[in-house]
Amino acid sequence: MINVVFLGFGNVNSNLFTVLHNTPKVTVNQVFNRNYIKMISPFDNIPFTDDISKIKDADVYIIGIPDDAISSFSETLYFQDKLVVHTSGGAAMDVLSSKNRRGIFYPLQTFSKHREVDFKDIPICIEAENPNDLEVLRKLGETISGKVVEISSEKRAKLHLAAVFVNNFVNHLYEIGSEILKDENLPFDLLKPLIAETASKIESLSPQQAQTGPAKRNDKKTIEKHLHLLVDSPYLKLYELFTEELKQNYGKKL
Amino acid sequence: MINVVFLGFGNVNSNLFTVLHNTPKVTVNQVFNRNYIKMISPFDNIPFTDDISKIKDADVYIIGIPDDAISSFSETLYFQDKLVVHTSGGAAMDVLSSKNRRGIFYPLQTFSKHREVDFKDIPICIEAENPNDLEVLRKLGETISGKVVEISSEKRAKLHLAAVFVNNFVNHLYEIGSEILKDENLPFDLLKPLIAETASKIESLSPQQAQTGPAKRNDKKTIEKHLHLLVDSPYLKLYELFTEELKQNYGKKL
Repeated sequence: MINVVFLGFGNVNSNLFTVLHNTPKVTVNQVFNRNYIKMISPFDNIPFTDDISKIKDADVYIIGIPDDAISSFSETLYFQDKLVVHTSGGAAMDVLSSKNRRGIFYPLQTFSKHREVDFKDIPICIEAENPNDLEVLRKLGETISGKVVEISSEKRAKLHLAAVFVNNFVNHLYEIGSEILKDENLPFDLLKPLIAETASKIESLSPQQAQTGPAKRNDKKTIEKHLHLLVDSPYLKLYELFTEELKQNYGKKL
Repeated sequence: MINVVFLGFGNVNSNLFTVLHNTPKVTVNQVFNRNYIKMISPFDNIPFTDDISKIKDADVYIIGIPDDAISSFSETLYFQDKLVVHTSGGAAMDVLSSKNRRGIFYPLQTFSKHREVDFKDIPICIEAENPNDLEVLRKLGETISGKVVEISSEKRAKLHLAAVFVNNFVNHLYEIGSEILKDENLPFDLLKPLIAETASKIESLSPQQAQTGPAKRNDKKTIEKHLHLLVDSPYLKLYELFTEELKQNYGKKL
């Protein structure tokens, strides 16, 4: 049995909480959050505190708060020599206070509060200062995911950067697509099968094999037409930059 | 029964061919292509020609060739007053020669030769010069898709532009993610669950609701760290542009 306490209850921790609570091999001893949270059914038997001096004992403390706050928050903890991990892709392990044993438990996924995700395939990236703690984190990860990987803070920083490209920036392109359609009174639904297939394609093809479109073909007429449609548009610069990069990429490799 | 002839056999037409051939209400009379194609089993009973003067009679002729070639190719057809459509998102209906009745049959999807797609949910965008032909195209579309929509050439141009953002540019971001990981000897597989969830999220959330990440939060420390990791990288400009737009977008709306 692994006992955990959650410190903070944002998107990541509330999702981790739900899945770990439902795991027989894990007990959630407590949830701490600076602001009061009413634990609702079926979780109303989980102790909650907003008092940092009342945090219970646990095998693993899981911090899920904004990156900028991790360092100072971890300094304010009353206990020491415990295994304290954070869940951030972007922050190094050593931002944590050294008065506790430090580690990382980073689920590589995008989380929203009211959307449950299936953890089975989500990579859990772990790191720890000593082998015993790494083993605890591996066991904890394996209760929910088939993909627990040890990754250093340096590599995790790059992984997080890549995640920003394929998640935040991709989602922004979805928003641009949606805005272009809105201007024409066309429903965003029209693009959804294309969005799904674009993501699905790279399960079996590399992104390079999957690429299609006017920029790859250097179809100047279509590109000219698009640039004309985008005159005075806030999306013109992105269109130009992507088109230039795609032309160069596929021009070089042909 | 609707009889069709395919003119050209690229990604779009070969996918349309497979699905229409398997539809009881449609007969594929012939495939024409400039270069010889060996029709392989189970399609070896479909007549093939590479001789433009030997094109058979049909209710609908479906042109699937590069945009730039549609106009001149449609002029070289020997017959007239037939329903001739093209399948391009980017080309207007009136690029087709006026010696035939013109139309559009545009499946809004990304096609690759060796990957079958399920047409049921794919929007088929149709357009025609006269109501009878529009009805034929609607019937033809409805044999394969539950989503046949009449869309003018002007609106289709915008739809195609939006498709470039959510498909070609999104796929380029996948490639950037894959390159960043390759430099760290990390497998691209690590990002696949995130890519799948990012696409899946907008089935139930708007892209704006689904957005997360350092740029949206204006998390300056993480952004600074990313910019530092991207010094001398070809991806720096895209990172800066996306981050600027996301900061503005979510800054304004807060």
